[in-house]
Amino acid sequence: MTTDSLSSLKESFQDLSEERLIEVAELPTFCSAEGIGREMLDLIADLYPICRSITGNGVRQTLSLIERLIPLQRHEIPSGTAVLDWTVPKEWNIRDAYVKNARGERVIDFQKSCLHVVGYSIPVRGRFQLSELKEHLFTIPEHPDWIPFRYSYYDENWGFCLAHHDFEKLEDGEYEVVIDSSLENGHLTYGEYYLRGSVEDELLISVHVDHPAMCNDNLSGVAVATLLAACLTRVKNRHLSYRFVFIPTTIGSITWLSRNAANVGKIKGGFSMTCIGDSGGFTWKETRRGDTEIDRAVKCALRESGEEYKLWEFTPFGFDERQFCSPGFNLPFGCLFRTYSHHYAENHTSADTPDLIRPEKLAGALVLCAKIVLILEGNGKYLNTNPKGEPQLGKRGIYRKIGGPIPQAHLIHLFWILNYSDGEHSLLDIAEKSKFPFEELWKAAGVLRETGLLIPLEGT
Amino acid sequence: MTTDSLSSLKESFQDLSEERLIEVAELPTFCSAEGIGREMLDLIADLYPICRSITGNGVRQTLSLIERLIPLQRHEIPSGTAVLDWTVPKEWNIRDAYVKNARGERVIDFQKSCLHVVGYSIPVRGRFQLSELKEHLFTIPEHPDWIPFRYSYYDENWGFCLAHHDFEKLEDGEYEVVIDSSLENGHLTYGEYYLRGSVEDELLISVHVDHPAMCNDNLSGVAVATLLAACLTRVKNRHLSYRFVFIPTTIGSITWLSRNAANVGKIKGGFSMTCIGDSGGFTWKETRRGDTEIDRAVKCALRESGEEYKLWEFTPFGFDERQFCSPGFNLPFGCLFRTYSHHYAENHTSADTPDLIRPEKLAGALVLCAKIVLILEGNGKYLNTNPKGEPQLGKRGIYRKIGGPIPQAHLIHLFWILNYSDGEHSLLDIAEKSKFPFEELWKAAGVLRETGLLIPLEGT
Amino acid sequence: MTTDSLSSLKESFQDLSEERLIEVAELPTFCSAEGIGREMLDLIADLYPICRSITGNGVRQTLSLIERLIPLQRHEIPSGTAVLDWTVPKEWNIRDAYVKNARGERVIDFQKSCLHVVGYSIPVRGRFQLSELKEHLFTIPEHPDWIPFRYSYYDENWGFCLAHHDFEKLEDGEYEVVIDSSLENGHLTYGEYYLRGSVEDELLISVHVDHPAMCNDNLSGVAVATLLAACLTRVKNRHLSYRFVFIPTTIGSITWLSRNAANVGKIKGGFSMTCIGDSGGFTWKETRRGDTEIDRAVKCALRESGEEYKLWEFTPFGFDERQFCSPGFNLPFGCLFRTYSHHYAENHTSADTPDLIRPEKLAGALVLCAKIVLILEGNGKYLNTNPKGEPQLGKRGIYRKIGGPIPQAHLIHLFWILNYSDGEHSLLDIAEKSKFPFEELWKAAGVLRETGLLIPLEGT
Repeated sequence: MTTDSLSSLKESFQDLSEERLIEVAELPTFCSAEGIGREMLDLIADLYPICRSITGNGVRQTLSLIERLIPLQRHEIPSGTAVLDWTVPKEWNIRDAYVKNARGERVIDFQKSCLHVVGYSIPVRGRFQLSELKEHLFTIPEHPDWIPFRYSYYDENWGFCLAHHDFEKLEDGEYEVVIDSSLENGHLTYGEYYLRGSVEDELLISVHVDHPAMCNDNLSGVAVATLLAACLTRVKNRHLSYRFVFIPTTIGSITWLSRNAANVGKIKGGFSMTCIGDSGGFTWKETRRGDTEIDRAVKCALRESGEEYKLWEFTPFGFDERQFCSPGFNLPFGCLFRTYSHHYAENHTSADTPDLIRPEKLAGALVLCAKIVLILEGNGKYLNTNPKGEPQLGKRGIYRKIGGPIPQAHLIHLFWILNYSDGEHSLLDIAEKSKFPFEELWKAAGVLRETGLLIPLEGT
Repeated sequence: MTTDSLSSLKESFQDLSEERLIEVAELPTFCSAEGIGREMLDLIADLYPICRSITGNGVRQTLSLIERLIPLQRHEIPSGTAVLDWTVPKEWNIRDAYVKNARGERVIDFQKSCLHVVGYSIPVRGRFQLSELKEHLFTIPEHPDWIPFRYSYYDENWGFCLAHHDFEKLEDGEYEVVIDSSLENGHLTYGEYYLRGSVEDELLISVHVDHPAMCNDNLSGVAVATLLAACLTRVKNRHLSYRFVFIPTTIGSITWLSRNAANVGKIKGGFSMTCIGDSGGFTWKETRRGDTEIDRAVKCALRESGEEYKLWEFTPFGFDERQFCSPGFNLPFGCLFRTYSHHYAENHTSADTPDLIRPEKLAGALVLCAKIVLILEGNGKYLNTNPKGEPQLGKRGIYRKIGGPIPQAHLIHLFWILNYSDGEHSLLDIAEKSKFPFEELWKAAGVLRETGLLIPLEGT
Repeated sequence: MTTDSLSSLKESFQDLSEERLIEVAELPTFCSAEGIGREMLDLIADLYPICRSITGNGVRQTLSLIERLIPLQRHEIPSGTAVLDWTVPKEWNIRDAYVKNARGERVIDFQKSCLHVVGYSIPVRGRFQLSELKEHLFTIPEHPDWIPFRYSYYDENWGFCLAHHDFEKLEDGEYEVVIDSSLENGHLTYGEYYLRGSVEDELLISVHVDHPAMCNDNLSGVAVATLLAACLTRVKNRHLSYRFVFIPTTIGSITWLSRNAANVGKIKGGFSMTCIGDSGGFTWKETRRGDTEIDRAVKCALRESGEEYKLWEFTPFGFDERQFCSPGFNLPFGCLFRTYSHHYAENHTSADTPDLIRPEKLAGALVLCAKIVLILEGNGKYLNTNPKGEPQLGKRGIYRKIGGPIPQAHLIHLFWILNYSDGEHSLLDIAEKSKFPFEELWKAAGVLRETGLLIPLEGT
């Protein structure tokens, strides 16, 4: 594919409305189109105000907005259902909540920000002295303008979150407190999008959809996953299958694993994705096994991305990789992010607004994911059918004519593939050894396959 | 154990006279008591003047002083006994020795320092011209005030060691030379202290007791081993067995190995210890196998010690590890020291005095050994009984109530243990991976065992 | 061998005319004699002007000059012979070639430098306008005084190479072009020198002999290989066999491999050698397997050479190692050079003259090769016959008498060998672990063998 055909491809796909199908090698370019970037920003803007939690109508509204771009299979799991060591909790919904001062003014008002209410707060209606009330108030003194995000999912409680500046203005006296919520038997809701390829081996991407009114954590992940899914739908002849799950943190992945335990063997690789739109470089948190194909594909894509990146060893905390990498599953499942949630002050506060998202970084994350897909699709082992000595490329029309000192880059790709296609080394191995771009090597393998000098190794 | 209870423990154990028993987790604190430090310094001071050699009454006196603190089983092996490739040598004793000048003055006098006589010097009585005498005199020209330590164990010879300054003052003329020694059939003497635990697997600590009138090499090692043994006696429910051997260098360990060859399989780990009281940082010289449990336990203890330390790969010379790591035994046996004997000029000279010993460094060595014991006692593999997904800690009362951004340290310990208790990883593995202190992880494992979420893996 | 006997050896062997035999341990010294260095420079000077190519009389003349020093077995393989995936090409010879301007002056003249003609140019006789001629002219604009080396072996074509300065002087008009060459059925020629040792395992050294009128690439390699072969002939009791092949690049090694495929199992190690006489440090390009005995022997020799050196991982391009390391052979075959061919501008140009060769560097390369031979000859595994505890060296007369602080170097060699001669570790392993010179350890092993404490392990 020449540079010219790439730019024309990019121009053709300013948005998803055109119906043309593409090759998987075109996916990164397709994903980098301006129209695709706009779709991600629009989706984040629309999802932002929704009051999400681990259950309830906020999750359902979120899934509905995602469905503008990809069809989801929705799952509703009843409260009380046993899922692994856990139980699906009651469903929480909230209509309004406030704290009124003696003058009847709403000094804390859910209508202004859903972060003001501690997630899963039980219904409250009463009057409290300031001192009593304070036991239920949460602030961040170091960032006095920000509202913290707090929740109490498994311990029935209630509370309000507010800016420390506003907290300090509260005068002594009695306050009227109303939380018009419900915590009742209902359902845990999650959505799933599955694209069948020519094999059942699948890449699983999981994003959490339970955080209310915050962007980088994790509407950025939701947007990238949704658009990747939408773009992948356009790819012809997908070899792998792809599964995208939109679930609440922890209880969501536990529920999913509980219901899909028999099929996890199909997961060739996967990752959770969050905090992926900020200005930081990438981080890949390795799978628990540490050197699986998904680890190596992501590292290869990162090397070739031109962006700064870090690699972290697996740790048994973080996001949903905790569950997928619990020892009883130990799946090849990592986590992709830019700035780690604990490493930016705005995380889990009202300061995690759309302004934290850098459009070019969000777009870069989507292209990285597309590159990971390209590598997983292209990777495999081949056999050099003429392994004794170098085959004579000249007689097959793939060699320069007048010998000079420096082999052409293209020839070197051929030599790497011929030498290491011994049944032991995959294209990803060869990319790692040679440091040449995966895509170039994949193309070179294609040239060699046409000559019959290279054949795919069965069963890889 | 809170900081308060730790200080109270430390106050309670100012010396060994009280009879209270302790938990193994308390051992490092117990060992750090001021009274224990004083015992070590007293022991060194009392042992210092004795004229030790690889056999003889000096060794017996040394063992007697150690027996003030711990009961020893003494072994007396007759001269001529075949021990591996060697033969127990004749026993050497000395009463007096001197060189008198023409004026009848003792210009070299054994009564002033036992270092003046080359170890194992045969009896001599005669008159020698200075030129003849000089062939039997040893000095250190670079350190003209110090008397060197020399010996000739397996080649019958005699000689005197003296300060080079004094050597230069010797005038021409005839000298009277007397060495009132005996080199006769007798015994090689060593002592042993064995503490039986609930299993026969043992930690073996070996210190050499043959060096005359020198402190860092190796009364420091003798003192730390003796007090560790004394303190270990107080520990309740020891899992491992412990063996301390007080032996002469080389021939001592060869003799011990010869007599105990059938039982060396019980040695789970061990080390020789010397030069452990000077101002230097620690060095762990690895076992020949390099990555055994004792290597990893010592490295963990060193990491957590807060002191500087170095790691050395095994080399087939040094101290008694040479014998324990000879290829026919290849035991998991290393060597612990501060400044290596060849790396400080005072070594093997009269300048290795009590002044070289820093009390806080000697105390630090004992605490390090206690920490090694703690790690070996606590190490083992466990099984997470709920390996699929994270178990719900909240319903077992071991989770925070209101969710905030940063997991508490204690929780992270639980997560590490749960995730890696898969039958493959030991607590020491988890400490290495997580970089959390071993003791904290051990405590966390205890919390999980109470909930039934963790069970010990049989046979580890 | 004392320093004295070494210098006397060096003086005795100023050239190869004397017939004395030597021990393999003497080989590096023997090779460093001044007379040997002179032979290498003379050989290069004599070979320099010859118009070599991958076939033809230039190769035959080259082999004849080598035969002044070592007898070669010559092989003549007919054109058209199938060799692996290739076919032996027609034989190329050339008598004269020129380009004459309108005034009848030879503006390009083969008689001045054989590099002026593109290798394998077909016969040409004709008149060309400058514009037509230019399509057959090659220059190096960045180095306007140098003539490039170009060839067209497998695509029938013709051309001239010239200095860019001369190219720029060419005036418009008609030129007479003559290439008096022949490209006809004939033979591919190569030479081989084989020295049988006590085992059939062999070291294979391959140098290419097809480059016309250039020195560092690769008359330097030819000279070092020839003199190493000549010196090796003098060595008594060689354990290994040695094979030197003098072949054209690519098609030569392919032809050799095709004809010797059944015997490549005997190749214990090998390397191609080129660009070995310039002022750069050494580079060892590892074998494809990366950690074979030849890799480790060369690295050991390099460490001990005192020269700067680099190690390169295998890459599937370069010199004849490409063929020996093709996946169907995957032989333990590397490449030894100083400055890599692509890393000095003079490579493959007329500027690669005898002036590029530094006599002391060429000599250093020969000594390095001799050291590699020494290591391969000396390497092996031994068994300590007294593996439990250290054997008592004193009673065998190999220990110091009066014990002092620092073990003598010689003793330390003994300890290393005794400790690691456990059937697992070779002398080369011990040299790597201990960092002591291989030769010293080999000598120490000899001392121990005399005492019976060490015996060779069968089959190594």
